[in-house]
Amino acid sequence: MRFAPIPQALPAIVPFIGAEEMERRRGAPYIARLGANENGFGPSPRAHEAMIAAASEAWKYGDATSHELRLALADHHAVAPENIVVGAGIDGLLGLLVRLMVAPGEAVVTSDGAYPTLNYHVAGFGGRIEKLPYRDDREDLPALLARAAEVEARLIYLANPDNPMGSWHDGATLTAMLDDIPPGSLLLLDEAYAEFAPDAALPRIDPNDPRVIRMRTFSKAYGLAGLRIGYAIGAPALIAGFDRIRNHFGVNRIAQQAALAALQDGDWLDRTRQNVADARDRIAQIAADNGLTALPSATNFVAVDCGGDGAFARRVLGALDRAGVFARMPGVAPLDRCIRISCAPEAELAVFAERLPAALDAARQS
Amino acid sequence: MRFAPIPQALPAIVPFIGAEEMERRRGAPYIARLGANENGFGPSPRAHEAMIAAASEAWKYGDATSHELRLALADHHAVAPENIVVGAGIDGLLGLLVRLMVAPGEAVVTSDGAYPTLNYHVAGFGGRIEKLPYRDDREDLPALLARAAEVEARLIYLANPDNPMGSWHDGATLTAMLDDIPPGSLLLLDEAYAEFAPDAALPRIDPNDPRVIRMRTFSKAYGLAGLRIGYAIGAPALIAGFDRIRNHFGVNRIAQQAALAALQDGDWLDRTRQNVADARDRIAQIAADNGLTALPSATNFVAVDCGGDGAFARRVLGALDRAGVFARMPGVAPLDRCIRISCAPEAELAVFAERLPAALDAARQS
Repeated sequence: MRFAPIPQALPAIVPFIGAEEMERRRGAPYIARLGANENGFGPSPRAHEAMIAAASEAWKYGDATSHELRLALADHHAVAPENIVVGAGIDGLLGLLVRLMVAPGEAVVTSDGAYPTLNYHVAGFGGRIEKLPYRDDREDLPALLARAAEVEARLIYLANPDNPMGSWHDGATLTAMLDDIPPGSLLLLDEAYAEFAPDAALPRIDPNDPRVIRMRTFSKAYGLAGLRIGYAIGAPALIAGFDRIRNHFGVNRIAQQAALAALQDGDWLDRTRQNVADARDRIAQIAADNGLTALPSATNFVAVDCGGDGAFARRVLGALDRAGVFARMPGVAPLDRCIRISCAPEAELAVFAERLPAALDAARQS
Repeated sequence: MRFAPIPQALPAIVPFIGAEEMERRRGAPYIARLGANENGFGPSPRAHEAMIAAASEAWKYGDATSHELRLALADHHAVAPENIVVGAGIDGLLGLLVRLMVAPGEAVVTSDGAYPTLNYHVAGFGGRIEKLPYRDDREDLPALLARAAEVEARLIYLANPDNPMGSWHDGATLTAMLDDIPPGSLLLLDEAYAEFAPDAALPRIDPNDPRVIRMRTFSKAYGLAGLRIGYAIGAPALIAGFDRIRNHFGVNRIAQQAALAALQDGDWLDRTRQNVADARDRIAQIAADNGLTALPSATNFVAVDCGGDGAFARRVLGALDRAGVFARMPGVAPLDRCIRISCAPEAELAVFAERLPAALDAARQS
């Protein structure tokens, strides 16, 4: 089998092994699902009703332009529909953006330990990833900008709030940063966790600013990860580019209806924010009870510093896994002193609380 | 906005304008939705129940490997799970296959008037489309093979049964054709409509044969177009290639569950086949009642020869559209003497029957 040169040269790796696959490998289901930053508080009941209603129309293709949802999103963000493209989750949109912007051999700048799926897509289209270390558990904005200028990066990836650390930059800092983006570079602002962040962490950006594209998702705050729906906000000329390459009928009908209903239920979103804030506190308390430090978080997860090196945290993670707790951890030092625990309902956090001490003991003794 | 060279050179066109977008343009909903070969007989009630059940787990990402569904499909087709990749519909899989196989400048051979989305993807990855005319309303197998050898095509696209004509080749002919595939070419057999075809139209192909990949969908016979789920069957080394580039979490959770339930309801599939066969007869009768000729079909649509040229058929289509009947037609001569009518429940076909005479009159008088 001879593939085209770019895929031929790719390693046969995947960015993430999913929870179900890990369950099959360990031979039992997890008791606490705290590894994928899913939202166990669930979607709005109105979104649930919309799914039920849309199931009756599953024989119809979805609207290729996600028209109603785009109008609602435009209204929600006070932008024009032409500023918005809906896609099959941020993962899908990341792939399209890389394809749209990055020719083989061109560079994309990101942080070492940041979202692996971005790196997967960049490699997948023959691009070159340039990684900068985090600085004090945050992405290092000046360093990213300097490297982007140096390597003539086509994209600068920045998640705010950050995954996997949960940290964030002030919105004002990000807004100011726009003027330092090198010509020819586009800032890719991954705002998957934006709805959990304090207002001050969100930059004010002109939607028509051609220097930046923002990505949002219904997978996190809106609790619809399984439906695969997200969107990007950017200048109309950039957004229109997606229409040249996207899979036009790729956003499923149930997802479009559910997302629309979820967006319209602001009360549920407020409730989710509160639930998530409470769960963050609970995780921090569990950490403290075990002599560990929870890092501040503006997301629906908490990076818990296990107080050792990466090998130690990996042993903790392994022991938790054996005890039925699914969690993940950052991939590189020094971030990998932490494990990453998703906010979840109390039933699951209680399992984590109960099983963490033994996992720490096991990690210390091996 | 400067895109990467390949997307920069692409025209801003889309392969299809969806029904909803056309409704917005005409300012009213359609009364009969007969244009996208959707299955208005709907999915199995068991698939519907599965959707409802899966809606409660919409907050979880779908299984990245579609494990259960792949096992069931492997069983269904008497192949190994390693022969199967599940994707977001055939459209999504076509894009991935083109990306996997076709380097910029390389050729893909298809028929002039065949599925436009294939051409869209080939252009989208910088490939070169080579089109051969149909012969007697069927794809011209020897000509496709000869041209593939001539241009060193990486892919040879063939839909069996064919869209948009509804025609088909004997399975035995297709099986025999495999030996004439030029080295370096892969036969891409689009079997979106296979479940509607007579057994004799389906080739017997060794799933491990590296010369061919087959694509199937849950959008047609299984009535789940809105969920975006399909699969490909091929040699393990080829199928494994998809894992290098696909969006691993791109197949939504509800779709996986619904597809599994649909696959397990063979009785419903039989009933759908009968409903579709009856609807084909009904469309043929409507055509005959209006002095038109329905072409034989092994699909869930019927190409109706309007007895004139493409301009005439286009006027018929336009008049039907104004009368609330959504249909489509082939894009090139001589196929475009036909309009393409999807099989549907009687309520919608009755609307077609009622409004066709006036549409023909209008087309004849303008």
